[in-house]
Amino acid sequence: MDAVAFLAMGREVLARQPFSRHVGAELLALEPGRCELSVALTDELKQQDGFAHGGVVSYLADNALTFAGGTAMQVPVVTSEYKINYVRPAIGERLVARAHAAHVSRSQAVCQCEIYALSGEGEKLCAIAQGTIARKGDGSAAADQSSP
Amino acid sequence: MDAVAFLAMGREVLARQPFSRHVGAELLALEPGRCELSVALTDELKQQDGFAHGGVVSYLADNALTFAGGTAMQVPVVTSEYKINYVRPAIGERLVARAHAAHVSRSQAVCQCEIYALSGEGEKLCAIAQGTIARKGDGSAAADQSSP
Amino acid sequence: MDAVAFLAMGREVLARQPFSRHVGAELLALEPGRCELSVALTDELKQQDGFAHGGVVSYLADNALTFAGGTAMQVPVVTSEYKINYVRPAIGERLVARAHAAHVSRSQAVCQCEIYALSGEGEKLCAIAQGTIARKGDGSAAADQSSP
Amino acid sequence: MDAVAFLAMGREVLARQPFSRHVGAELLALEPGRCELSVALTDELKQQDGFAHGGVVSYLADNALTFAGGTAMQVPVVTSEYKINYVRPAIGERLVARAHAAHVSRSQAVCQCEIYALSGEGEKLCAIAQGTIARKGDGSAAADQSSP
Repeated sequence: MDAVAFLAMGREVLARQPFSRHVGAELLALEPGRCELSVALTDELKQQDGFAHGGVVSYLADNALTFAGGTAMQVPVVTSEYKINYVRPAIGERLVARAHAAHVSRSQAVCQCEIYALSGEGEKLCAIAQGTIARKGDGSAAADQSSP
Repeated sequence: MDAVAFLAMGREVLARQPFSRHVGAELLALEPGRCELSVALTDELKQQDGFAHGGVVSYLADNALTFAGGTAMQVPVVTSEYKINYVRPAIGERLVARAHAAHVSRSQAVCQCEIYALSGEGEKLCAIAQGTIARKGDGSAAADQSSP
Repeated sequence: MDAVAFLAMGREVLARQPFSRHVGAELLALEPGRCELSVALTDELKQQDGFAHGGVVSYLADNALTFAGGTAMQVPVVTSEYKINYVRPAIGERLVARAHAAHVSRSQAVCQCEIYALSGEGEKLCAIAQGTIARKGDGSAAADQSSP
Repeated sequence: MDAVAFLAMGREVLARQPFSRHVGAELLALEPGRCELSVALTDELKQQDGFAHGGVVSYLADNALTFAGGTAMQVPVVTSEYKINYVRPAIGERLVARAHAAHVSRSQAVCQCEIYALSGEGEKLCAIAQGTIARKGDGSAAADQSSP
């Protein structure tokens, strides 16, 4: 698949996620093991101080990590876990998450993600995340139906 | 402040967060160091397989951790960082996050959160989170404006 | 296996870990999905301020999480990932880590752990951890030999 | 301080940590916001399968993150929290942790670390970590003496 088709395929996957449409997410770039996911910082994505809500920044991290891991492994995947550090209030016109797969094995990819806020002043790092994307139905508790 | 006023105060804070309104979040319970935050699992909160999107589960974790930490410390706070493990697809009519402060100091609270999916079959654990809620402007990089 | 034999089996596993012997670790309690692991706080386990070194607290968290997850799943396991929050300097005569499996599936267990320092003043919470213990060779990158 | 003096200063700090001596840690490189910490993989640092014990890999991550954050901030610091993903068994003659500060503010540094195993086959990535190093006594629960 060429680069244009690959990005188009990713955008189709994103368009099938109702929540991604609900927050207005856009896939800016996608290649195996790497992605760039963005939202325009509309009022409805903010918290009480006018910054992006942490949940929006988390959404971007979660989904960008998954796209990076899924395209690295090229099998159906689920997000197993991640951690995120917020380092600055997310203020600006747009947020962009850039994720890449740092290590890929048969069963999982460990990915990293940086989230930037874009404004007239340029782009500023707002959050840093790291997580595990797992092959679906194989080492992925999130895909199991077994009870606790 | 009595228990009813405390919950009403929390609901007022939540209502001032545009993103919390955007996802339809409701504060079911609130006391110092403890909270219960919920969303009805409407279609727009789902991903392509009909489960709650990970970003929604993350939003609940992030916000519930913050309410637990903020009410434990009773000062203005920011979420500093957290990690989340997804353990089962979030399927059902409603998600409920239950968070509590596990350790509170002058400058931060370390909080834990469990997210459950509620359906006709009862409630099932979907995700587990742990994070740091920091006093605003004191040990909180997220409140700093300094550049990297 | 009865409770006494189960603990004896766990102690045998621990005794086969050279690093656990190097730090003087002792298994105080073990049952399926639950364990208590301890070290006497000798000088060689400290950092420059006389507290336990973070690496010792991390060792306890890592190993206690693994025992909790391994005994919950009762299959060969590896530690996939964990996070730890240090909440107080670990000062005292002894450290004790108490871990339990919070969710168990066919392929992994998500476990939580609290680490306490014991002194004449009683026991004080020093750190809180959460992590994933994975079935070996199944969903466990750490057991894979594939290269990045 | 020139580069040679800076590294010598770091080695002096490391030498004052009894646990770092106990595991045989060596500081290979140190500059503001960046460090390289290593151990020879002697038998006593292994677990039952002949790999480095996860606790050793964790020790390296914890300490390398702290050196990176402390030299970035150039104030007394404590490790507040971190997460680590193990991606491959740590097999070889030596382990090396390379850490850098990804974001620095007045009160904390968010740092990242990669841990490699070195053998005749070259170096292989074994673990990836991310954590928060906090200014001592300011936003650092670990430096507080307040009780839970």
